[in-house]
Parts: sequence; structure tokens; C-alpha cells
Amino acid sequence: MARDSSATKARLLDAALTEFAAHGIAGARVDRIAEAAGANKRLIYVYFGNKEQLFDHVMQRALEAGAESVPFDVEDLPGYAGAIFDHLVARPELMRLVVWKQLERPAATPAQEGAYAAKIDAVTAAQRAGRLDSAFLPSDVLTLVLALSQAWFAAAGGPATEPDGSPWSEQRRARHRAAVVEAVRRFTAPARHT
Amino acid sequence: MARDSSATKARLLDAALTEFAAHGIAGARVDRIAEAAGANKRLIYVYFGNKEQLFDHVMQRALEAGAESVPFDVEDLPGYAGAIFDHLVARPELMRLVVWKQLERPAATPAQEGAYAAKIDAVTAAQRAGRLDSAFLPSDVLTLVLALSQAWFAAAGGPATEPDGSPWSEQRRARHRAAVVEAVRRFTAPARHT
Repeated sequence: MARDSSATKARLLDAALTEFAAHGIAGARVDRIAEAAGANKRLIYVYFGNKEQLFDHVMQRALEAGAESVPFDVEDLPGYAGAIFDHLVARPELMRLVVWKQLERPAATPAQEGAYAAKIDAVTAAQRAGRLDSAFLPSDVLTLVLALSQAWFAAAGGPATEPDGSPWSEQRRARHRAAVVEAVRRFTAPARHT
Repeated sequence: MARDSSATKARLLDAALTEFAAHGIAGARVDRIAEAAGANKRLIYVYFGNKEQLFDHVMQRALEAGAESVPFDVEDLPGYAGAIFDHLVARPELMRLVVWKQLERPAATPAQEGAYAAKIDAVTAAQRAGRLDSAFLPSDVLTLVLALSQAWFAAAGGPATEPDGSPWSEQRRARHRAAVVEAVRRFTAPARHT
């Protein structure tokens, strides 16, 4: 029984991720999620609560998976930015989820706040030790690194496409990745005293 | 008569901007736009076409106003990034419009493509003349500059808020603006041959 319910939960969360990524929170339909998961709609309310709470569960699961795949490394912010880029490009539905969240449910969850505070502490310590440039506030370092990692999604002509609308080639994507990594390296490197 | 219709058009476009910024394209209601503008709903179809075409008109008008307020300056990309930041922070509904567009209508319009091509040409020329670092593709330069200008919207804890959810103070915002400008300066400066 316990195994069955955890399998159903996982199927519901997978279906919800697909639905939210496509339609956002207001546009998502709980009926479609239940149908795609082959589960009774009532179970969504039993397991997760209302639609907004379901979204929070989906986001939390995505963030946990992301933190496992791409651990934060304050000693190598350029590499961290490249790894975020890889993770999001491989799972474009996550990027859409993140952007819907910005529009429809911008407040940070307690788990997000905790993860963020831990990163702030790590950046602060690295700045004090002189391994990161101290010209920027730790929160600006994190915000700008993340923005560079996600820049492809807001590229002119739409997410990861050429200006004419055709999808990026693998070479083009690799070139953009290198640009992200190099941009992070340049702006976070400790200032040289000349 | 001509003056009346142009005033009605402007009222409809203003109301549509507010509606699209709040609800996106799928979530926008043409009825609400007509009511807010004090105009007949039928006029929206007469003047602009369907809801998607109305969105394109709103976006085009916003981009034209943006290009007038913040002219592209390839000789001063850090200053350009700061000016975009100011423009978007002062008009947060524009930033939301841009993000809804990424999700719901990502393809570039012909006017966007034209404006983008002109910027690419300017960056290419500046790189050839050695006034911009040539390590990056022109399209990556533009994408990363824009991402840094807009980073505040995706900041942890939601758009332009502290991690605890309180709005940024003016000092905090000024500090972030300086970080954006400095980050752009660092990553676009011509490489020094050492």
C-alpha cells in the first residue's frame, strides 16, 4: 500500500510538472493532471492540497533534484554557472517552471530561503578570505550568476533559438555556455591590485 | 474623429498593457480591457485584431517607447545596462510583459528582429575595431548584457525584494544597479594582453 501511494504521488507530481510548465499556475487544470497521471483528482487534494500548494510541492521537488545534480560550489562559481546552464537546458520545463513562479508566485518558500541563506554565508566567507572579489554584495553575486546561467531563456528570438527562430545547434549552445562561464569568471575574480 | 479614435486606441493599449502584465496572454480578458478603457469590446477587434495580435501591438509600443528612452549605445554597454535597469524598475509592468512573452509568445516579431540585427551589427563593428572584447559572439554579448540588466526580476525571494520579502530600499537598488554596471564593464572590456 505504501509503495502504491508513493508511486501515485510521483506520477501526480510528474504530470503536474508538465502541466504547470506548459500553462503556469492560473492556466493549469487539476483535471488534466489527474488524467495524465491516471489517478483520481481527489487524491491531489488529499496528498498535496490545492493547486497552489501542488505547485509548491512540484517546485520543491525540482529544487531538491537540482541541488543534488548541481551542488553549489563557491570555490568555482564559473563551473557552477555552467552546470546550472546544462541542467536547465536539458530540462527546459524546469526553466519554464521557474519563470512562471516569478510571475505568479514570487515569494520564496522557507526551504528556498534556507538554501539561499546558506549560499550567502558561503559567498560572504569566500569574500572575507579574498577568494572572491568583495566589490559586490553576496546577494548580488548570487543574483547575477543565476541571471547569466539563465540568460539563454530570455535570448532575443525566444528561448535558445537563433534570431530566425531555428533551434540552437549543439555548437552554438556550447559557445554560449563558454560565454556564460567566462562572464562569471571575469566578474567574480578577485580584483588585482595594479 | 481621427483624434477621437487615436485617443481610444491609446486608452485601449494602456488598459491592455495593465491586463497583460497582470494575467499574461492566456489569462487576459478582452472584456476587462474594454471596460477599463471605457470602450466597446468590438473596437479592440476592429483596431488590433484578436487577443494575440493585441498583445503584439502592446509589446511593439512598449519596445518603441523603450528604444526612445534607452537608446542602444555600443560604446557604453555598462551605461546601457544601467539605463535598461532604470527603465524596467520604474515600469515593473514592462518586465512582467517581457517575461509573459518569453513563456507564451516567444517568437520575435519582424520589428524585434530588425532592432536586434542592428545591435548585432554595431557590436560586430565595435569588436572589429578592438573597442569590445572579441571573445564573445555578438549575440552572446547582447544576451548576457540584457540578462544582467534584468537579473533583479529573477532575484531569490522574488522580484526586487529582500530574501525576507520586504521591498528593496533605494540604497539597495542603487547598489544592485552599480553591480550590474560593473559586471557588464568587466565582461565586455577589451582583453588586455599581458
